[in-house]
Amino acid sequence: MKNCQFYLPVKMFFGRDCVVKEGPGVFQALGQKALIVTGALSAKINGALDDVQAALEQNQQESVLYDKVMSNPTVGCVYEGAELAKEAGVDFVIAIGGGSPMDAAKAIALLACEDIPKEELFTWKPTKGALPLVCIPTTAGTGSEVTQYSVLMNDEQQTKSSLAHPCLFAKAALVDGKYMYRLSRPNTINTALDALSHLVESMLSQRVSPATRALSLQGIRMLTPYLKELDKKELTPEDRDTLLEASLLGGLVIAQTSTTVVHLLGYPLTYFHKIDHGRANGLLLAAYLKKMDKTEPVEVTAILRTMGMAFVSELAELIERLLGEKEKVTLAELKRYAAASFKNPKSQSGLSPMTEGDLLDIYRESFGL
Amino acid sequence: MKNCQFYLPVKMFFGRDCVVKEGPGVFQALGQKALIVTGALSAKINGALDDVQAALEQNQQESVLYDKVMSNPTVGCVYEGAELAKEAGVDFVIAIGGGSPMDAAKAIALLACEDIPKEELFTWKPTKGALPLVCIPTTAGTGSEVTQYSVLMNDEQQTKSSLAHPCLFAKAALVDGKYMYRLSRPNTINTALDALSHLVESMLSQRVSPATRALSLQGIRMLTPYLKELDKKELTPEDRDTLLEASLLGGLVIAQTSTTVVHLLGYPLTYFHKIDHGRANGLLLAAYLKKMDKTEPVEVTAILRTMGMAFVSELAELIERLLGEKEKVTLAELKRYAAASFKNPKSQSGLSPMTEGDLLDIYRESFGL
Repeated sequence: MKNCQFYLPVKMFFGRDCVVKEGPGVFQALGQKALIVTGALSAKINGALDDVQAALEQNQQESVLYDKVMSNPTVGCVYEGAELAKEAGVDFVIAIGGGSPMDAAKAIALLACEDIPKEELFTWKPTKGALPLVCIPTTAGTGSEVTQYSVLMNDEQQTKSSLAHPCLFAKAALVDGKYMYRLSRPNTINTALDALSHLVESMLSQRVSPATRALSLQGIRMLTPYLKELDKKELTPEDRDTLLEASLLGGLVIAQTSTTVVHLLGYPLTYFHKIDHGRANGLLLAAYLKKMDKTEPVEVTAILRTMGMAFVSELAELIERLLGEKEKVTLAELKRYAAASFKNPKSQSGLSPMTEGDLLDIYRESFGL
Repeated sequence: MKNCQFYLPVKMFFGRDCVVKEGPGVFQALGQKALIVTGALSAKINGALDDVQAALEQNQQESVLYDKVMSNPTVGCVYEGAELAKEAGVDFVIAIGGGSPMDAAKAIALLACEDIPKEELFTWKPTKGALPLVCIPTTAGTGSEVTQYSVLMNDEQQTKSSLAHPCLFAKAALVDGKYMYRLSRPNTINTALDALSHLVESMLSQRVSPATRALSLQGIRMLTPYLKELDKKELTPEDRDTLLEASLLGGLVIAQTSTTVVHLLGYPLTYFHKIDHGRANGLLLAAYLKKMDKTEPVEVTAILRTMGMAFVSELAELIERLLGEKEKVTLAELKRYAAASFKNPKSQSGLSPMTEGDLLDIYRESFGL
């Protein structure tokens, strides 16, 4: 038996209108005053903010709103949110959004309990815990609602970096596909590719277990028919539910195994080129699998078969169709990112060792350079 | 999207010698004094008790031993254990054993915090929580290390009944197949059939979800090659690990979906005829699947295919071979058990409604009456 762990303390509620139906019971137990963390717009448009406020009102609980989370949240943003949490004396945090608001909310919940110097944020070992957090995902990709990770822009390292600690797990996730009904097609595609990346990378992580592998394959099975049509199909709320469940399975498995090389290589693309996080993973995924097919053919075949494919090239074609024209990067840039990524321990967290040359190969193949 | 929940807050540690390696860290956080709950013999023979005591000593933590848990623990037993916990002023509970010690330990952990009149035990709604609990399974079947259920003999209802509450989840499970190395063949067979029953019943429960279904099929996939040889093969510690992981997946899924008709019908066989719990489930499982094959053929086929079988009759033959001669029961007794079981809401918790006649059919088919 491999030495490993499995821990997922988030209470997950699924179903239509679960924020209104289950939210009051969940919020009631967490205190009198909530900080709602979200972006500037989407939670207002998709109805999630109204639902949360209705649930809080039903309990006569108070709230303050922090709606300044940008895509790829910065360290400055989470310190600002934490300042508001402390000033307002909130008891708990509610995150509404995609990965950015949820990841920011986790850091805010932590910073509201501990004074952490900015330059130590990414290396800090929490001892006092974090404010209780409830996550309401409004995209289907990040899985952040069930992970202990908060991924933020790290200017020191010039990439995105994670805070990771069990105290960052949400107490509960309220999961309802209806909030994604009006999500744009590019957003839907990018987030779905992020979910696929989580499910695939987890299977090729050193920390894979029979349980996470089964959940990965199930998530891939659920996601595949949609992926094949995301560039044309109009999605119903029920389709959104299925995508969201698959995404949640992706979160659930990376909470155990972490991500590996695709995420590692994607972060500099987001940091330096402002490429959307899910899109960055999508750009790299096929080249990564082509590399892994040489050393882990059984697992790569299992992934492809579950997608109804025989060759990595079929997945590459599908993703190309979904992502359209690629961003321009230079070989010199890719060499720099490969060198920096190779120094990160995550580069060796997969089932097979990776050289700096392997990492560069994946980049070059992905951008045809 | 079906309205459903998924919650599994137990921190699971897998691996050889994990009680010695991970135990000290786990126990340290839970207090100064532990109550160790176990049966009279097995934990002493299989080395688990020594390992627990070594881990506690490393932390200079104290412990008291309650080693009087019998198979199918009684209400009297758990009140006696709780009395000892209160007298000794323990901070946490460590359960070592199969389902009986773990289930007893959960009730003891609850009763140490709340004064519950004996006659209200099975209907009590906990409000004060329970002492923190760590489970160390020494059989591969119950899955109790990751469930919120404590199943006890219920003399009032003349069957086995469950306490079920989130506060009964263990804080951690320490999972090591080495403690099962000397488990007798009948014990190994009965507990493996219990695990199979959990995995199968969960797939046919109304509360099944894509995640639990994937985990069920994975557990069945891991269990099957062993089941087919349990009557002759000598199992290595590594084989024991695999059986234990499959059993844990069974616990994980019934923590979400609960068991259904097989367990319901098995309890009176244990209560009145002293038939081992896993064996009772094994005796009933094929007849139950034969019945379900008529209303849920897709799911039954998925189960059989995962076992490499085409017909329920193949599973029936396998189980008959494993269990040998059946106990004698009378038709009058079975009619009584079917009537009593039909009054239990669990009889309607499966994907298809069940009449009293259906329940009796399953009993009759199982005992050839």
